[in-house]
Amino acid sequence: MSSDLYRLTASDISAKIKAGETSVEEYAKSLLARIESRDKAVQAWAYLEPEYVIKQAKALDAIPAAERGPLHGVAIAVKDVIYTKDMPTQFNSPIYANDAPQVDAGSIAILRRNGALIFGKTTTTEFAATTTGPKTRNPHDSKRTPGGSSSGSGAAVGDFQAPIGLGTQTGGSTIRPGSYNGIYALKPTWNSITREGQKIYSLILDTLGLYARSVADLELLADTFAIYDDAPPPADFTVKGAKFALLKTMVWPNVGPGTSAALDKAVSLLRAHGAQVEEIDLPAHLNELPNWHATVLNSDGRIAFLPEYTVAKDKISEQLVGHVENSGKISRKAQIEAFDEIAAARPVVDDILGRYDAVLTPSVPDEAPLGIEKTGSAAFCLIWTALHTPVVNVPGFKGENGMPIGISLVAPRYHDRRLLAVSKKVGEIFEAEGGWKPSV
Amino acid sequence: MSSDLYRLTASDISAKIKAGETSVEEYAKSLLARIESRDKAVQAWAYLEPEYVIKQAKALDAIPAAERGPLHGVAIAVKDVIYTKDMPTQFNSPIYANDAPQVDAGSIAILRRNGALIFGKTTTTEFAATTTGPKTRNPHDSKRTPGGSSSGSGAAVGDFQAPIGLGTQTGGSTIRPGSYNGIYALKPTWNSITREGQKIYSLILDTLGLYARSVADLELLADTFAIYDDAPPPADFTVKGAKFALLKTMVWPNVGPGTSAALDKAVSLLRAHGAQVEEIDLPAHLNELPNWHATVLNSDGRIAFLPEYTVAKDKISEQLVGHVENSGKISRKAQIEAFDEIAAARPVVDDILGRYDAVLTPSVPDEAPLGIEKTGSAAFCLIWTALHTPVVNVPGFKGENGMPIGISLVAPRYHDRRLLAVSKKVGEIFEAEGGWKPSV
Repeated sequence: MSSDLYRLTASDISAKIKAGETSVEEYAKSLLARIESRDKAVQAWAYLEPEYVIKQAKALDAIPAAERGPLHGVAIAVKDVIYTKDMPTQFNSPIYANDAPQVDAGSIAILRRNGALIFGKTTTTEFAATTTGPKTRNPHDSKRTPGGSSSGSGAAVGDFQAPIGLGTQTGGSTIRPGSYNGIYALKPTWNSITREGQKIYSLILDTLGLYARSVADLELLADTFAIYDDAPPPADFTVKGAKFALLKTMVWPNVGPGTSAALDKAVSLLRAHGAQVEEIDLPAHLNELPNWHATVLNSDGRIAFLPEYTVAKDKISEQLVGHVENSGKISRKAQIEAFDEIAAARPVVDDILGRYDAVLTPSVPDEAPLGIEKTGSAAFCLIWTALHTPVVNVPGFKGENGMPIGISLVAPRYHDRRLLAVSKKVGEIFEAEGGWKPSV
Repeated sequence: MSSDLYRLTASDISAKIKAGETSVEEYAKSLLARIESRDKAVQAWAYLEPEYVIKQAKALDAIPAAERGPLHGVAIAVKDVIYTKDMPTQFNSPIYANDAPQVDAGSIAILRRNGALIFGKTTTTEFAATTTGPKTRNPHDSKRTPGGSSSGSGAAVGDFQAPIGLGTQTGGSTIRPGSYNGIYALKPTWNSITREGQKIYSLILDTLGLYARSVADLELLADTFAIYDDAPPPADFTVKGAKFALLKTMVWPNVGPGTSAALDKAVSLLRAHGAQVEEIDLPAHLNELPNWHATVLNSDGRIAFLPEYTVAKDKISEQLVGHVENSGKISRKAQIEAFDEIAAARPVVDDILGRYDAVLTPSVPDEAPLGIEKTGSAAFCLIWTALHTPVVNVPGFKGENGMPIGISLVAPRYHDRRLLAVSKKVGEIFEAEGGWKPSV
């Protein structure tokens, strides 16, 4: 039924359009109808102009088959910290209300040229830098946060309002909404996708993140952005005989019952399917990683928000004023030490991660908390952002209130494709037997 | 004489305007007249609209004295890889011909709010990424290159067409034109000025650079961008009793007679003024630094230019196509090793640099070469870009053809202000006794 097109993954709708079974316009209308029926509850969009979406869809339909790109007609939700030449980019900041510089971010230029339907802009916390939630609600319980800072992209993909979405991550801004909304999320290796035209918070931490409801869709996006490992991923990977590690990390005291139980179940499922799972720790000196991350983040915020502070200090949040004024009194010496210690940790951790097919670690402390004022804790994401490793949130589990919980799979830097191949097989098990299914 | 206003430094014109001795409009007209008389020979500008400059100048003159910023009325030349909301940004790329996204780079927003007169856009090599020269000629000999990639900003400041300018550096793009054009240049510590809205080549290498004809002007800009060390620089620094090192580096075989003689003279002058100068080397394992820089640069170019490659492969240069297609067949493993080795080298080199008031090292192999097709060698700049240290090009010497040659002074990361304080005193000596004076 064409009215159900909105439920398809990117790979599936792409195949349908290619086969001539539907048009981009028909598909766009299905998504718009879904959004119309659900927007009051979810409010994922910072900017969405249905007429313009249809106009774009018609233009895509007019392209001859031979000239169509691999993402032809696939709708994508774009976090509103990424420039789009035909839509406003507002950063959830009053400074940039209705601001619409006519430029595409590098990522958008690539997506557009590959035929993607740039659908609209999704909500974010202020500059993707704070934990104060925007208007968006969790699609699985509108009393709860969808997480942040990629609130709208996470919620839109989780609610079948778009099959794929762009987020960003400097702390936990891609993986956390991935877990809260019950979807797949990839934080690729740092700097494996251009960040041209994406708001800077920290050069050494910021990463463009990807959302989808299947690993195949993440692979489609990885192809689009030319993310390749040195060797192609094993075509015949099976969980049976695979070797995983469980890493609770130095921030384990943050864990709640939901994620604790989900991890137990994840380990049991993998073992039941014939995998080895051993518990590991990072070297003790790396217990400082979260502090180093905070030191670098705060120091980089001092640089990143000086323009807004200079132009309109009264229109940025207290946290960002604190960054610029260095309210934490972080010395340059401390900043450099944190920067260098993280750098020294990267090859050490890569080496440990490289001994396994993937390392399992929490995505978040627990299911999405009540309220939309705060976007939840990024405690478990920070170290991987600092370490530059790829992380995939694999959904499938649920918390005490029936909300989705995902588990992070981690691999060494530039093993993104291998991690996706492993995540695909692991995801099949978690989705089938983890206990959570989307009901929206 | 008001017609000579164009010759003033930023600090001097700023004081004159503040004292009511001239207006911004009168100053702007003096600069425009200078440009009119010299543009045929130098061709520093990618975009300059005299009427708009005057309009802006008048608007600045209309601001009440109490509301004026510290850079009120000071003209600045902006490299055309940095977004300006009121002028085109074209990157010397046919893909972006006449492109004018309405957005200010973070640096421009800060400068504008501080009262700077954003004068025009200056030439660059393609995306500040190649060594193929733009139309610009060296103001001191129009048969020679002004260097690159910040060709226009270097030439404009060297030719008294603007007192200060913005450049960028990923290899040697700020320091090299600094030396070739006989001006001061500061490549500050990496990420000490926001790069929001500046074309990305390599996240870990790209640095915004500053040009001026005096150290006081660089200090004014450092104030504007809130570049501060942990401790204020010594107010009473003197060359007498100071301790310098001479570092020829692993790329010394690139040196020509001009720089070799300039370094000898620099050492002699410092000793004659009562300083100690000892020659040092970096640890032998760091001889790989230039190779690591190349590996990181080429790998990062693979990411940075994928958008342009995707959109219009036929409109980017062969070098950039090679980056995206990884024509050097650089593995992810090699990329990570180079990235990590450079990271490990940073604290090691900081420690060595920290033993001296400054370390002297070549800025360039020699004076600006003949021809404008190529922008010269960045051999001596690369390692400092990779190491993230601040570098000041101090002019004052000349080569066999009478062209300017500068010397680089280097300090540990986040000792920019101390380095400027030292460079000021060293510059007084080099300018007075080094043997080169601008004749333009």
